Amino acid sequence: MEETFVPFRGISNDLKGRLLCYKQDWTGGIRAGIRILAPTTYIFFASAIPVISFGEQLERDTEGSLTAVQTLASTAICGIIHSIIGGQPLLILGVAEPTVLMYTFMFKFAKDQKDLGKPLFLAWTGWVSVWTAFLLVLLSILGACSIINRFTRIAGELFGLLIAMLFMQQAIKGVVEEFNIPKSQNPNLPAFQPSWRFSNGMFALVLSFGLLLTSLKSRKARSWRYGSGWLRGFIADYGVPLMVVIWTCISYIPTKNVPEGIPRRLYSPNPWSPGAYTNWTVAKDMLNVPLVYIIGAVVPATMIAVLYYFDHSVASQLAQQKEFNLKKPQSYHYDLLLLGFLTLLCGLLGLPPANGVIPQSPMHTKSLATLKHQLLRNKLVSTARRSIRENSNLGELYRNMQQAYNEIQTPLFYQNPSTLGLKELKESTIQQASSNGYIDAAVDETVFDVNKDVDDLLHVEVKEQRLSNLLQSVMVGGCLAAMPVLKKIPTSVLWGYFAFMAIESLPGNQFWERILLLFTAPSRRYKVLEENHASFVESVPFKTVAGFTFFQTFYLLACFGITWIPIASVLFPLLIMLLVPARQYLLPKLFKGAHLQDLDAAEYEEALPTTYNMTFGDDDGQSRTSQIDSAEVLDGMITRSRGEIRRSNSPKVTSSTPREMEPCYSPRQQGYSPRQQRYSPRVGSGGKGIEIKQTPSPGPSNLGESSRGCSS
Amino acid sequence: MEETFVPFRGISNDLKGRLLCYKQDWTGGIRAGIRILAPTTYIFFASAIPVISFGEQLERDTEGSLTAVQTLASTAICGIIHSIIGGQPLLILGVAEPTVLMYTFMFKFAKDQKDLGKPLFLAWTGWVSVWTAFLLVLLSILGACSIINRFTRIAGELFGLLIAMLFMQQAIKGVVEEFNIPKSQNPNLPAFQPSWRFSNGMFALVLSFGLLLTSLKSRKARSWRYGSGWLRGFIADYGVPLMVVIWTCISYIPTKNVPEGIPRRLYSPNPWSPGAYTNWTVAKDMLNVPLVYIIGAVVPATMIAVLYYFDHSVASQLAQQKEFNLKKPQSYHYDLLLLGFLTLLCGLLGLPPANGVIPQSPMHTKSLATLKHQLLRNKLVSTARRSIRENSNLGELYRNMQQAYNEIQTPLFYQNPSTLGLKELKESTIQQASSNGYIDAAVDETVFDVNKDVDDLLHVEVKEQRLSNLLQSVMVGGCLAAMPVLKKIPTSVLWGYFAFMAIESLPGNQFWERILLLFTAPSRRYKVLEENHASFVESVPFKTVAGFTFFQTFYLLACFGITWIPIASVLFPLLIMLLVPARQYLLPKLFKGAHLQDLDAAEYEEALPTTYNMTFGDDDGQSRTSQIDSAEVLDGMITRSRGEIRRSNSPKVTSSTPREMEPCYSPRQQGYSPRQQRYSPRVGSGGKGIEIKQTPSPGPSNLGESSRGCSS
Repeated sequence: MEETFVPFRGISNDLKGRLLCYKQDWTGGIRAGIRILAPTTYIFFASAIPVISFGEQLERDTEGSLTAVQTLASTAICGIIHSIIGGQPLLILGVAEPTVLMYTFMFKFAKDQKDLGKPLFLAWTGWVSVWTAFLLVLLSILGACSIINRFTRIAGELFGLLIAMLFMQQAIKGVVEEFNIPKSQNPNLPAFQPSWRFSNGMFALVLSFGLLLTSLKSRKARSWRYGSGWLRGFIADYGVPLMVVIWTCISYIPTKNVPEGIPRRLYSPNPWSPGAYTNWTVAKDMLNVPLVYIIGAVVPATMIAVLYYFDHSVASQLAQQKEFNLKKPQSYHYDLLLLGFLTLLCGLLGLPPANGVIPQSPMHTKSLATLKHQLLRNKLVSTARRSIRENSNLGELYRNMQQAYNEIQTPLFYQNPSTLGLKELKESTIQQASSNGYIDAAVDETVFDVNKDVDDLLHVEVKEQRLSNLLQSVMVGGCLAAMPVLKKIPTSVLWGYFAFMAIESLPGNQFWERILLLFTAPSRRYKVLEENHASFVESVPFKTVAGFTFFQTFYLLACFGITWIPIASVLFPLLIMLLVPARQYLLPKLFKGAHLQDLDAAEYEEALPTTYNMTFGDDDGQSRTSQIDSAEVLDGMITRSRGEIRRSNSPKVTSSTPREMEPCYSPRQQGYSPRQQRYSPRVGSGGKGIEIKQTPSPGPSNLGESSRGCSS
Repeated sequence: MEETFVPFRGISNDLKGRLLCYKQDWTGGIRAGIRILAPTTYIFFASAIPVISFGEQLERDTEGSLTAVQTLASTAICGIIHSIIGGQPLLILGVAEPTVLMYTFMFKFAKDQKDLGKPLFLAWTGWVSVWTAFLLVLLSILGACSIINRFTRIAGELFGLLIAMLFMQQAIKGVVEEFNIPKSQNPNLPAFQPSWRFSNGMFALVLSFGLLLTSLKSRKARSWRYGSGWLRGFIADYGVPLMVVIWTCISYIPTKNVPEGIPRRLYSPNPWSPGAYTNWTVAKDMLNVPLVYIIGAVVPATMIAVLYYFDHSVASQLAQQKEFNLKKPQSYHYDLLLLGFLTLLCGLLGLPPANGVIPQSPMHTKSLATLKHQLLRNKLVSTARRSIRENSNLGELYRNMQQAYNEIQTPLFYQNPSTLGLKELKESTIQQASSNGYIDAAVDETVFDVNKDVDDLLHVEVKEQRLSNLLQSVMVGGCLAAMPVLKKIPTSVLWGYFAFMAIESLPGNQFWERILLLFTAPSRRYKVLEENHASFVESVPFKTVAGFTFFQTFYLLACFGITWIPIASVLFPLLIMLLVPARQYLLPKLFKGAHLQDLDAAEYEEALPTTYNMTFGDDDGQSRTSQIDSAEVLDGMITRSRGEIRRSNSPKVTSSTPREMEPCYSPRQQGYSPRQQRYSPRVGSGGKGIEIKQTPSPGPSNLGESSRGCSS
């Protein structure tokens, strides 16, 4: 993305790019059929459960001014609008923890003001929203998102880990609170006797750990050895929501000896109960706010604007990481503009605004990558089977498959379909087959093992569409009607779910993986090399990796620490934004440029990529791939424990790897070449550190961000 | 073992064999040094915890006539005597569940008899012991153990799984009972209110699952990626006892809000409390038992004798499976004789007798195999390092290592040290090195990677000695003094431990693995082939495997069912013994002989082994082995999840595998050859189905049971 600060330039670029694929955003989603429900329900639960819990938190902290009804309504309204007229439909909107912190702080301030007080709190936040919206629109028009490529991996991943820590903290706090008397309750009630609290706490431990462990297991179901493929797929897709239901049912099993009120369950007013919608008339009250407070609202508004600018952009960025090989263009400026209007709308309706959320947004993209993989795979497998039945030879087989692949692809006219990923593999496989004398014979399953070889052909692609986002937003709205059912969920199941979300967001975060690497015994580091791994493992000396990671960890702890300080807590986005200049001016003084490239590639530091043609001495590649199972390949790369696609450890030909450098592990291990290198050769030179090129042709690639759609 | 029924022949053979290595049994153990404590504590906990729990069960069921004091005393006394003058020191003795069932039954009988009643119960069991001892001595003298080789895998593994089911049943029953009022307590106490029971039950769930999950994790510590090798080894060796301590400490953490008496803890009288040792004068009371009851004691005595004959022999057999490559001779007859005397001793002392226990005995052997591996490995690694420092070439390196290996080996004079396992590997490695031109150069770490290549040289051996058994028995005795400390263990931790023992005993049980195979999705069966696996997976059609497994499962369920029938329950060993004729006469009619060979090789059906010389086309063997980690290799084979050493899936050349047979999985997978084939080539013909030969020389092998020591 070019850094343009010409007013409206960014917005218009975004709009141009997204309008081209707008129709396809819908048709593509609808053509996915019933399978779209898997990512939809997955994200719906990931979105709704924290929002309900934040609503409970707000209700306690704002003395009932805002409840789960408001947070759900805000999330649903903003989500529906964004999914329909927003730019990047992969981005999930919701009321987030920082917003809750800000609103709590504002409530405490407003309550103590004689001229505001609790009655005018929401009206005042309405004015805050007006200012926030104004600032966001201004930022958007002036092209502030152009500097998004200065938010390098170091900032995004640090923020991701911080959110994971906050989620985990909430999970732990929640479980601990199950052993105490709820704050809002009368501590003298007979129910809150010591034995009651102990029982409740113990039951909470069982439920929350039960949910956490079974959810983590179920996400890996695709690689289970037992059960039919259909069942395993179903559990992997719907296991987590299912577990919430199952553990809620389990919480009803002990009935005989259970003291009343155990376990604690979600608490929220029904939206139709009296008083729950007094705040829908906030816009009228706004005129009663004294002028000094209207002007004073600029102060919190600035904070929120900075927060949203960063949070929204980073959430969007994490949902569009290069490793996902997205094909549709980005839309940072336009989305920020829309966020301004959504914030205004929420303010006028007396709702806390929703913005782009982490980790739900990257989770959304990952689940859509799984969906796309399944769709492509089914299509190609059936095509291959048909070809084999029709006694095609290998050439015809691949032609048929290429055709099927093209049919299912997004027919975006700015793409050259001939660069698609099937081609090179077809050639290498045909070459291999011809050397074995199979080329003219009719193909059978010994030459082309349908289930396995098809997986080898596929690389990561994402089903980019708007339907899943719209549906999950509608379902969040549906929660308002389903509130009596939701209230049956024990709070402890919620805490387990929070822990699950924190853990799910870790794999694929290179910062996290570097922390793990620090704790890995030196004699075990080669194990990292045996798996998919980031290139820095091979190219950067261990001491540099450690130094960089210590710096980042220290920064993370500082950010985490600041969230504990009552008023300063809202400043934590500023602290993270400070990383941007630190990365640009301080870090290059501390670390070698080449190492920094591999650890945290920044586009503005990169030279122009010179593409390179490489062939691999892949002697035992065939025998190796034939043993690797099909269905978990993508799981391994994305969903199961991998968060994002790691670059393979193919022989590196980057200028950033001078031979004299001592890599993380002994050279003896480097001879090991996992199968991934066959279809994601890492081709780079001229310091192009983290780019993956799937197609070694020098023509326009469909993978790098810089060549995505018409955004550049 | 020959089937000889000449009186005393078996006993004298056993004695001759064991006396030859008696001194080495002690010196070998002492020379192992401090490391002997790892298997010792592991087995001590595995032995003591169930014994204490069985003691509690007996106390409840015999109205306090027998308590944990008696069961511990019996286990300690019998264990110490057996470890010193017993035949096979790998065998662990203890009071087992079947004994508890028998004693409960006898108590119910005696209590209702006017002339016996509770006061004379122990005296009467004294007479039962006299008869039992007589029968056991008789069986031993007449050479009844000669038919031990008719107890094929089918019977032993079925019995092993039955014991695992009983342990798991006890674990589940125990946890469920935590939600109820203890039987022996007054249900009207305020402590046993519904809320108390619920709290107690929930806490029990937390503690038992906590212990189970952490124990299972800690056993796998050696393959962890984090932490130093020393720490990982320590956790793997001592993790389970440590977890019992840790979870006991955790049970003391919640103090503030906990109702009194939660959690329930072990209950047992201290051995020094009044009345705890009234039964030590049983021998005197025996004269007061009426004659009719003395004669009637023959009936339960016969049952117990059959039970012990089977149980003791199978426990010993499972501790000496072929896969362990034991070098010292067996001692079935003499051990049965000794058991007779031990039973008599216990009877006269008013103690329930101890016999060979499952799964502790095979667990003992496994933990000693781990110990031996560590000892050998350390020695060879340091030798190799020294040789490399001294700039030896590869030939000298291997000479030095062979020498070091011989030094540490058991110097048993009936063994030919030249057949030791290092030799063939040395040759193949040297051959490989010479073809690469390395042979005359000084060795460095690129040619011989000390950590990895040493592991490739080692096969499974067991540190056979008496010290660990003696020490653990003494420690069990020490429990009597430590009773006040033991009483701090919550009962729920115990149930978790029972579940752990049940799960630990499963891996390596081929019956269990066949059950799992039935549930494995057909598309995933090839995964079984990728790992170490038994040969039947490749050689026997799936339908036959399924049929055989269904038969065995049905039989298992029948045995399990019979333990639920109050009086018939003591007959379950008879039912298992019925398997022996069923296997010999019925099964050959239902299944093809060749298949039966592979599924359940019986020695009496085997033709004479014709040894075969094979070389393997091991083209990519080197590149493959270099990637496999060292420390877990043995873990993988024995301790971690493998229970026993599986035969590798090397190319099979057995007469029992005609080509026209359809194997379990597609032939495409058979090309896969894991590294194990390098050092445990499966050499067999003439129907020699389950024998592993490490050394392909036709001379006397040190591995097959038939050639062990001087037993034949």
